[in-house]
Amino acid sequence: MRNWLLPEHIADILPATARQVESAKAAMLELFRTAGYELVLPPLIEYADALVSEGDSALDIKTFKLDDHLSGRQLGLRADITPQVARIDAHLLSNRTGVTRLCYAGSVVHARPSGLMSSREPLQVGAELYGYAGIEADLEIIELMLATLRQVGVDKLRLDVGHIAIFRGLAAAAGLAAEETRELFGALQSKDIATVRELVAEVAEPYKSAFLALPELYGPRQVLDKARTRLPSLPEVELGLMQLTAIANALDGQVELSFDLAELRGDFYHTGLMFAAYAPGWSEALARGGRYDNVGRKFGRARPATGFSLDLRDLVRILPERDAAQGIRVQARDLAAARDAVAALRAGGERVIIDYLGESAVALDCDRELVLAADGWQVVPFN
Amino acid sequence: MRNWLLPEHIADILPATARQVESAKAAMLELFRTAGYELVLPPLIEYADALVSEGDSALDIKTFKLDDHLSGRQLGLRADITPQVARIDAHLLSNRTGVTRLCYAGSVVHARPSGLMSSREPLQVGAELYGYAGIEADLEIIELMLATLRQVGVDKLRLDVGHIAIFRGLAAAAGLAAEETRELFGALQSKDIATVRELVAEVAEPYKSAFLALPELYGPRQVLDKARTRLPSLPEVELGLMQLTAIANALDGQVELSFDLAELRGDFYHTGLMFAAYAPGWSEALARGGRYDNVGRKFGRARPATGFSLDLRDLVRILPERDAAQGIRVQARDLAAARDAVAALRAGGERVIIDYLGESAVALDCDRELVLAADGWQVVPFN
Repeated sequence: MRNWLLPEHIADILPATARQVESAKAAMLELFRTAGYELVLPPLIEYADALVSEGDSALDIKTFKLDDHLSGRQLGLRADITPQVARIDAHLLSNRTGVTRLCYAGSVVHARPSGLMSSREPLQVGAELYGYAGIEADLEIIELMLATLRQVGVDKLRLDVGHIAIFRGLAAAAGLAAEETRELFGALQSKDIATVRELVAEVAEPYKSAFLALPELYGPRQVLDKARTRLPSLPEVELGLMQLTAIANALDGQVELSFDLAELRGDFYHTGLMFAAYAPGWSEALARGGRYDNVGRKFGRARPATGFSLDLRDLVRILPERDAAQGIRVQARDLAAARDAVAALRAGGERVIIDYLGESAVALDCDRELVLAADGWQVVPFN
Repeated sequence: MRNWLLPEHIADILPATARQVESAKAAMLELFRTAGYELVLPPLIEYADALVSEGDSALDIKTFKLDDHLSGRQLGLRADITPQVARIDAHLLSNRTGVTRLCYAGSVVHARPSGLMSSREPLQVGAELYGYAGIEADLEIIELMLATLRQVGVDKLRLDVGHIAIFRGLAAAAGLAAEETRELFGALQSKDIATVRELVAEVAEPYKSAFLALPELYGPRQVLDKARTRLPSLPEVELGLMQLTAIANALDGQVELSFDLAELRGDFYHTGLMFAAYAPGWSEALARGGRYDNVGRKFGRARPATGFSLDLRDLVRILPERDAAQGIRVQARDLAAARDAVAALRAGGERVIIDYLGESAVALDCDRELVLAADGWQVVPFN
């Protein structure tokens, strides 16, 4: 009944949840502000080729296309905000040569839902740091991501960390073709060991053993030591393990940490360290991010970049509900005389509701009412 | 240069303006909350026939259509939020039989811009009151509209008030066909007197004179007296003039008031009193609204309704810019040691920015920095 008027995977956000969404969003944007992240509001629609990079078929099939009668060109309805922020850093803010921190909060639309229970209209909130390649920037983003979740009441968190450059380095050294790399990537991502075995059957050592080792390299920080003995000493592998170790050292004791060298879930544009935050009892990540250097190249400026994002529409399902304060009823016939009293109450944050029909306290969601007493307008219990 | 990457009438909102938009939006939603309006967040896309009523060609050509591979049906990208709120009142909140107050703030997309300078992505903020047909409800909405504009700093306001039922009553009594009514409506709306004369040439008296009088019936409240002598005594005319008089009485001295009986600009669904707020020096209305009874009929529940909306993207252009406080620089190498000091400053609302590159005070937008003194971390001037 509730949804027959709306397409599948599309829903209204009704009052109780809507205020929660807005207040969580405001809290997040305030946190971003104090950390120096500037807010940008990119448009919902722009040229499809600006929204989706060539070769990013996963994002392409998620992006609704629109015919623009004004330009005659194809527009897209954004399915991800990160490419838009990259465009802004590369193009509109290109006079800035140092570090640029940007944040955003807005709806995106997916032509196809990401999962069985996923909304096709996630509310994407995120922060991005451009212009610094050091691991300290990734650490800043990870800490901001954790603070963002804690800010809205998610306390028990586990952080999963991986590094896509390790896999890419191995694939390049093993001489895998683009198509083979993509298939192996897919098999590792879905932890499909049988297919991984099949795909690496012809791969030379030490790369074959390395690919077979990847799915076993997950768990606490000791995994990093194990990886050093089981993976060949390539520059990408060395740098990757060094960065993962730096993260382990920096976050030691701050959050439950888990490493996973086969955890490659991310977007087409990711290039390095990747991370995701989980809460107990929820199989999907609450927030995820990673490094995506040079994403702005197509807009004329390749810069180091790292960032995270979350779906607030999804996240709000696990947030504790807040009891909204009940309101104060004022009868419509009293309004002209009580105008100043009503204005003062509202300015103090009270909800004051005009009652035209003589409705019940429950229907009005009011536990008090405004009445005229000997010494002026008074708030008294109403039930 | 700035916009070549984006389609015409589409723009990013960059940091200085984006924070202004967010804080104005938050102030508006807070005002709505204290007046008892509950927030709803309807989706950006839904079935096209739910978004656009049959016959509403103006809204139809503004609405981008999308093919939904999931349902095989045509979706629309919303060009207006009011029909969505009507759907929610009629359908999701149909257990409420009394007054329902709803508000919203979200982007809409126009396939064609409303004007030469108009954005194709207005940020629509509005409030709607369902379930009470009395003029007091319109007055509540008008006062909320004025308070909303004043809340964000627009002080000098003029309110234009009209009543579409007066025109509709005259057209029905004169026996005009639907097509004639539409043409005459268009001519009156564009104040094209020559065409009005032509269209009413064959219309019987007293309606012919009434239609010719409409474009002259604008100005202060004396216009209402003039209207009583120049318009025939139809029930719609009587009721309309009575409601306009009630508005004149209630708002006397609170805002500059102007009446215009040929002011018919509104949406397809408007049925009664209509109003628009103007600021000196701006030809376009800053906010507008009106009564649109029975708009929920297509969703199974016809109810009285009145509401207003504004485009915050447009409005923010006339708001005074606020100086953002400058930040506090902390050097990246100090971060581990200064962690607690940084957290405390941020919790107090200060922007604390980590400096990785040794950037200038201007580049960092910082006027202070955090340094280690004999008695701990201190904020000192930085330039």
